[in-house]
Amino acid sequence: MIMAPIPARNSSTAPQPNGQPQPTKLPVASQRVEGPLTDVWTLFNQYTAKYKAINLGQGFMGFPAPQFVKDAGSAAAQVESCMQYAPPRGVPALRDELAKNYSQFLDRPVDPNTNIVVAAGGNEALLSVLAAFLDPGDEAVMMEPAFDQYFANLKLLNAVPKYVPLRVRPGIDATQNVISASDWVLDIDELRAAITPRTKVLIINTPHNPIGKVFTYDELQQIGQVAQEHNLVILSDEVYDRLTYDGHTHHSIATLPGMWNRTVIACSAGKAFGVTGWRIGWMIGAEHLILPCLRAHTRLIFTVNSPMQLAIANAFKAAHKNDFFNTQRQEYWERRHHLCQSLDAVGLPYTIPDGSYFILANTGKIKIPADFEFPLEVSSQGRCYEMCYFFTKEIGVTGIPPSEFYSDEHAQLADNYIRLAFCKPLELLDQVGERLVRLKQYM
Amino acid sequence: MIMAPIPARNSSTAPQPNGQPQPTKLPVASQRVEGPLTDVWTLFNQYTAKYKAINLGQGFMGFPAPQFVKDAGSAAAQVESCMQYAPPRGVPALRDELAKNYSQFLDRPVDPNTNIVVAAGGNEALLSVLAAFLDPGDEAVMMEPAFDQYFANLKLLNAVPKYVPLRVRPGIDATQNVISASDWVLDIDELRAAITPRTKVLIINTPHNPIGKVFTYDELQQIGQVAQEHNLVILSDEVYDRLTYDGHTHHSIATLPGMWNRTVIACSAGKAFGVTGWRIGWMIGAEHLILPCLRAHTRLIFTVNSPMQLAIANAFKAAHKNDFFNTQRQEYWERRHHLCQSLDAVGLPYTIPDGSYFILANTGKIKIPADFEFPLEVSSQGRCYEMCYFFTKEIGVTGIPPSEFYSDEHAQLADNYIRLAFCKPLELLDQVGERLVRLKQYM
Repeated sequence: MIMAPIPARNSSTAPQPNGQPQPTKLPVASQRVEGPLTDVWTLFNQYTAKYKAINLGQGFMGFPAPQFVKDAGSAAAQVESCMQYAPPRGVPALRDELAKNYSQFLDRPVDPNTNIVVAAGGNEALLSVLAAFLDPGDEAVMMEPAFDQYFANLKLLNAVPKYVPLRVRPGIDATQNVISASDWVLDIDELRAAITPRTKVLIINTPHNPIGKVFTYDELQQIGQVAQEHNLVILSDEVYDRLTYDGHTHHSIATLPGMWNRTVIACSAGKAFGVTGWRIGWMIGAEHLILPCLRAHTRLIFTVNSPMQLAIANAFKAAHKNDFFNTQRQEYWERRHHLCQSLDAVGLPYTIPDGSYFILANTGKIKIPADFEFPLEVSSQGRCYEMCYFFTKEIGVTGIPPSEFYSDEHAQLADNYIRLAFCKPLELLDQVGERLVRLKQYM
Repeated sequence: MIMAPIPARNSSTAPQPNGQPQPTKLPVASQRVEGPLTDVWTLFNQYTAKYKAINLGQGFMGFPAPQFVKDAGSAAAQVESCMQYAPPRGVPALRDELAKNYSQFLDRPVDPNTNIVVAAGGNEALLSVLAAFLDPGDEAVMMEPAFDQYFANLKLLNAVPKYVPLRVRPGIDATQNVISASDWVLDIDELRAAITPRTKVLIINTPHNPIGKVFTYDELQQIGQVAQEHNLVILSDEVYDRLTYDGHTHHSIATLPGMWNRTVIACSAGKAFGVTGWRIGWMIGAEHLILPCLRAHTRLIFTVNSPMQLAIANAFKAAHKNDFFNTQRQEYWERRHHLCQSLDAVGLPYTIPDGSYFILANTGKIKIPADFEFPLEVSSQGRCYEMCYFFTKEIGVTGIPPSEFYSDEHAQLADNYIRLAFCKPLELLDQVGERLVRLKQYM
């Protein structure tokens, strides 16, 4: 994660379009939007284009969206009631569908009128929860690696992130061996030690991006215990809830004893239906938690676009009839299998993800030639960035440097990793395999 | 504007669903989301339903959306490239259309790649600009009455609103006479006096909600001069830019000498195309201003839903061919005319709006019977709320109390006003006229 300040502007650098009189000073941006001039996604998209690499960087689907979802979108765009403002809580039809789904999944009554807010994508759901419970200077604790939007959201709110890294169990050599996502574990005492009187929110992400870890019931119980001790709100990012493999069961921490009263679940239709560009997400929680989230959401964007909400409601109905979620899960299993086979073939170790659509490959074995040249914006960021740049330019496969998912303090834990997304067509994943073979000469 | 704190929660009021063990404490919401338990929109929607009133409260369109816009939406929902994340700046096709439109309107080159960010509605555009330039404790100065979302957005950001009321010119009796929107004027010295070293942003709204004032070139020049003196960013809320009447010309302050370097324009497709539920808006400005706005926007919601962006791009193309904007303006003129006639017939004075789709009627003549009863949530808010409640219950017409658009300090300036929206079918506006006749007995 790079957080360089925006260069200060002054009169000497002021643009003077149209020969307008030059102002003595130009306005300066707020500290809350400070950051690198080019973010990691834009940077590696540029390299991908330049070196004609296969893009396994950003987690967007490389295959067509389901036709029944598109058709639900087209139909909703004709519905007159979807032309004007939806209620800030969301279109009733979608809240009704969500209530049915979550009443079953959480095994408790979920009320469409009090327990649900529809958001403009998973991101806005996460931000709404953080805004609802964090004042400036308040802290949110999270496990690294962590989705980079958490940092950016907290910075926007002038709140403070606190980090506890997940670590590979001692004795396991991840540079030489394929390991299980369950080999990445949290030291619960380290979590406890990170909490201060200013800590108000604990963020948990299961299934986890980028490790693919599906937290077990026991792990969630320990984490929940800490939240209870310190009266924390749990923001449970479950956007990959429908993508688990090999019989691993996704548990929501909200289902554990005592946890419903302090957990807000954030989810995403983009992930569930393969339409990341539709920007529909939702928050689920107890009324006393959802009310502040609704206030934050209303102040952030007022309300979400109506046609896509109705479309997702109807997509849910169709999905239950055509068994979409099971089919999709099977398809993702195959994609994961193809990418794992490609990595196995070249002998590159990785963490087998139990959920989500990312694989963390371990690059510890790879030696980049001493004369290989890096742009400054890459070399300044350490081995993790360098390796990803090397993959893009030399191997023709783009991943994302997971150091982006760590605090500066712990960024070196990412040195040996590259995140590869497998939400891509099988043919493309097989082409990746062909390209990865070239890695052998560098091992 | 009511800003009551959320009631504190403690263990004695904690819900205990499912017999779960009761936590010692429950999480408490942040100060940034404090506010009334029921907002003015929800409150008056409830009364509207209860008393079967005609709803001229919220500014949503009461007539069908244009068929060509709906069709553009249906078509876009089938386009594969709209299924995944759009670039945070927005779908290129929409930025290209906006660049063409604004290059012409602003009479300067507007670059689709550096001068435009697409937002999830006008609200998110406004918030992005505020977030881009305001740190906690920084101030934004605005003219009252002001769109209530400004206050809420600033509170969310821990920034501070400063208010300068627009006032009816001295010597004009607005309680007895129909007046012009141009009779509401800004005292430029009062604006200057409201600015402190912490002031970073000046918000201007033209055409103005709820007055309908279209600021003149001279007025904008004076305001711009103040912005220049104090190095302020101007947030120019121009969401009603295409709705001006009787030959009044909408000027953007961004076109005045020196102002391009300090102005960000916020606009709305919902207003332009009659689809408030689509949540597409945009920011236009110089690159050094747009970059921080893009950062804020990316942290707020990452990116906007793709299909609706493409649909609006194609709607713009169609609108230029079928002369939609002129037709729509004429239709709004007729709606305004019908509502004005209804007010004239009963002798209720008002401000003739030169733009937007609201009319401020003056209720100074009306005497509510002494034995008329109000709910506490109404009577606690003063005459303006009481009159709106009286209109809803007794006359069967709902408006919005403009005190909601004022700071507590100046709320009494709204005592004699009710805001009526005329973005409604002619038949409905004529029914309003029939109902308003009953007011005569109270004058």
